[in-house]
Amino acid sequence: MSLKIAIAQINFLVGNIAANVQHIIESAHTARDELGADIIVFPELTITGYPAEDLLLRKDFIAAANNAVYSLAEQVSGIALVVGYPELDGDRLYNSAVVLHQGVTLANYRKQALPNYGVFDEQRYFAEGSQPCVFEFNGTFIGLTICEDVWQGGIIAKTKQAGAELLLTLNASPFNAGKIHQREAVICEQIKAAQIPLVYVNQIGGQDELIFDGASFVTDSNGELVFRAAEFAEQISVIEFHEGLPVANHCAPQYEATAGIYQALVLGIKDYVRKNGFSGAILGLSGGIDSALVLALAVDALGADKVEAVLMPSRYTQDMSNEDAVLQANAMGVQYHIVPIEPAVNAFTGMLADIFAGTKKDTTEENIQARCRGVILMAMSNKQGRLLLTTGNKSEMSVGYATLYGDMAGGFAPIKDVPKLLVYALANYRNSLSPVIPERVITRPPSAELAPDQVDADSLPPYDILDPILERYVEQDQAADEIIAAGFKREDVARAISLVDRNEYKRRQSPPCIRITSRAFGRDRRYPITSGYRGI
Amino acid sequence: MSLKIAIAQINFLVGNIAANVQHIIESAHTARDELGADIIVFPELTITGYPAEDLLLRKDFIAAANNAVYSLAEQVSGIALVVGYPELDGDRLYNSAVVLHQGVTLANYRKQALPNYGVFDEQRYFAEGSQPCVFEFNGTFIGLTICEDVWQGGIIAKTKQAGAELLLTLNASPFNAGKIHQREAVICEQIKAAQIPLVYVNQIGGQDELIFDGASFVTDSNGELVFRAAEFAEQISVIEFHEGLPVANHCAPQYEATAGIYQALVLGIKDYVRKNGFSGAILGLSGGIDSALVLALAVDALGADKVEAVLMPSRYTQDMSNEDAVLQANAMGVQYHIVPIEPAVNAFTGMLADIFAGTKKDTTEENIQARCRGVILMAMSNKQGRLLLTTGNKSEMSVGYATLYGDMAGGFAPIKDVPKLLVYALANYRNSLSPVIPERVITRPPSAELAPDQVDADSLPPYDILDPILERYVEQDQAADEIIAAGFKREDVARAISLVDRNEYKRRQSPPCIRITSRAFGRDRRYPITSGYRGI
Repeated sequence: MSLKIAIAQINFLVGNIAANVQHIIESAHTARDELGADIIVFPELTITGYPAEDLLLRKDFIAAANNAVYSLAEQVSGIALVVGYPELDGDRLYNSAVVLHQGVTLANYRKQALPNYGVFDEQRYFAEGSQPCVFEFNGTFIGLTICEDVWQGGIIAKTKQAGAELLLTLNASPFNAGKIHQREAVICEQIKAAQIPLVYVNQIGGQDELIFDGASFVTDSNGELVFRAAEFAEQISVIEFHEGLPVANHCAPQYEATAGIYQALVLGIKDYVRKNGFSGAILGLSGGIDSALVLALAVDALGADKVEAVLMPSRYTQDMSNEDAVLQANAMGVQYHIVPIEPAVNAFTGMLADIFAGTKKDTTEENIQARCRGVILMAMSNKQGRLLLTTGNKSEMSVGYATLYGDMAGGFAPIKDVPKLLVYALANYRNSLSPVIPERVITRPPSAELAPDQVDADSLPPYDILDPILERYVEQDQAADEIIAAGFKREDVARAISLVDRNEYKRRQSPPCIRITSRAFGRDRRYPITSGYRGI
Repeated sequence: MSLKIAIAQINFLVGNIAANVQHIIESAHTARDELGADIIVFPELTITGYPAEDLLLRKDFIAAANNAVYSLAEQVSGIALVVGYPELDGDRLYNSAVVLHQGVTLANYRKQALPNYGVFDEQRYFAEGSQPCVFEFNGTFIGLTICEDVWQGGIIAKTKQAGAELLLTLNASPFNAGKIHQREAVICEQIKAAQIPLVYVNQIGGQDELIFDGASFVTDSNGELVFRAAEFAEQISVIEFHEGLPVANHCAPQYEATAGIYQALVLGIKDYVRKNGFSGAILGLSGGIDSALVLALAVDALGADKVEAVLMPSRYTQDMSNEDAVLQANAMGVQYHIVPIEPAVNAFTGMLADIFAGTKKDTTEENIQARCRGVILMAMSNKQGRLLLTTGNKSEMSVGYATLYGDMAGGFAPIKDVPKLLVYALANYRNSLSPVIPERVITRPPSAELAPDQVDADSLPPYDILDPILERYVEQDQAADEIIAAGFKREDVARAISLVDRNEYKRRQSPPCIRITSRAFGRDRRYPITSGYRGI
């Protein structure tokens, strides 16, 4: 007995049901006609995209999604479809998968394990299913599961007990560094324990702060991988099952860790710009490492003709900053403008002279400079319909070393979840492909250039100390004492933590980022602004 | 048999366990010594404040909260305490209430109904309890419940079946317009069905976007109110139970609807400023109705000496705008500054002249004006440590009729959840107490004054049409067809809805507001920015 299962690792658009249905139909035809597939499996909540968030509370949206599923059954023949959708039953909504074949519903499964942690809010929307689901297709008994279901042993075992010889799972499993290995390790272990082959289909694409990396895979009943789809790319592939076992197939090569993060960032920028209909992107290019990396990412994502750089020097900008910015813009073939900020800074200084008379200079004056740059960049973004990319990194965002409405201005902050040390690693990785970031940008001491001879190290611990402290505090929820016990100086820990604690208000108004760590500032770190908690 | 139960309607600070413990101890001593209470009941999650959000994921925070409860038992004698806390048991966390008396734990209850909708995310943090809890105190059998538990009949009935003669409930029930009546109506009905007296203790105070209104109450076993505490104020009161029935007591008068919303806004500003340690507030005063209302609210919340107004006229600002702004500032005794924005606007126009050569004027130029005002206000806020209040209303925020980093700049947006028609109602209400907002501000047609002779009605449907459409679409999730069927013109509905759909990116970067409707833009409306959904 032979069965050909197509894996539809597809990039859907959240909320656009009509377009997603069209994408499903075209993919099914490709799988049927070009790949000879008997059945095609799509990712979790195919019809709506994932996560549709509070769109799932709209009755019109849910009705449209359910109607789309009914109509799908009649629009595709000659291949079975396994499609995810928000299933309405009375006043309950389920995260479901349906099997459609020749106009008939062969099976319908309701997800049992609803994640409600980290970036997931599924218990806000869905009721839990309680039954395994097994259907017969061409003589094979196939079990259905959805995402979180297969991270737990119990549901896999129950599905096998219900008669499944083969497991399909529809997923929307978001990326973070190390996630692909972790995902395969955890799930293959579950599969090995349950002894049942698995077809794992993951969504791919960027959706606000989340990246879905694809990397769909198939294991035999021992949990050994026999197939892996590409990372960070759409792919429709077909796997043949012979006598109930998958025939070994191509395993796509995997990106090394830094390269994978780079790919995730490129995909994130590309999809945010494309899915939101921007004509391109602009950014402020300072001659520093952060904007240099974002420029490289943007050009790799969108092409040089879709990206514009703006140099906005002040009296504190060193010549080498301007030189290096121009060097990179030229190296990448990007149009750039130079707009010195002095006239605007002087105007504000004059306008505020009376009010500020007798006060001392402080960060207020630095913020004015940063905000003048924000006004210029936003004006250019408004005029041209190009997305303003914010260039700040995670280390800065953690400690609030950034100006609200200044360098924090923008619609999308690609490296907001990238700690400074990783910014350097990514810049070096990019230069290893072709040298685009001037070496001096990488080697000079980082500076905001908002005051004479200013360097980051004046205000912050060095990044090789700061970054690991932040990772422990922000991502791992470690207490100050634990971090100190791990070998960090109390004063460094105290400085870092107290800045993190005090700057939630800034982060709350920052643009969305691309999540590449296990905890980004965004939907998976929900802190009160008004808070008496002090980590130290 | 007589029992005196104190109701501790207290304003706690989220995250500050030490301060909250101190507040508990002082309140208990007051209740014991001044009111002769036998037992004092605090709101839900007393120790941490509510909602502590992802602080609840921190092991150090949870350990501190649990230790605080153990230590409390030894710090208060002569009165029993009923205190809410996040109870750690193994690796599970419960939303619990503990009864402490003379160093002994009399009872411990784990909340059974965990809300995970609207502004609530309790299933992100807590495991569900499964047992009712009844303890004997001075011969009375008392049942414990927590908030959501008493909105459902089942848990009340089970607690009574377990022997309770009297029910205590600890709450953190947030305000929105009409909520106090709704809360009393729903819960009294449950109580009437179950036939058991209830002591309902609610938190009071502002916490980021949430307002807790207090309005604690006591009912007899028929669900008839025999006591109600003040709205929007701290209060410790004592209720005597005689032979198991509450002795009738004082019912505080209730605010009429508009007055109640006004109180909520005043409390919200007061607590945000106080709890976050600002020295006061500043705002841009335009001569329009929105900033006029926010100024009145700020002065009522903080006092005139803590509030500063800034007039920032441009060439498009009418004389009456400046005149009325000055009139109100003087009427309220508030210091004001006048900073014309022309120099900065001219500077930016000059700086961008080459880049914008050959392009047409559009909203870009309007945004530059708004952003110059943002820079000035933020500079003053930075220099003085005063909170910048953002003055935009909900109608504008819905349709994106506001400039990101311009008039949207600020740390807190008091009326972001107040639709324009309600802004007028609140202004009239405030003037009915004492006339502070010039009549012309209320009667003139609203205008952003960013272009010659501009009025809102050029770009938007009139507010008496726009506001009800927005309420249906944003708060009630109605589909376009439903709204049209209710009597609105298709073109108005289409204009409003498409603007709402397209402006999620702006709202995502807006400051937190004070939630006064059943769905604010904030934690209870979680929409994707990248979205193909179109409501029409």
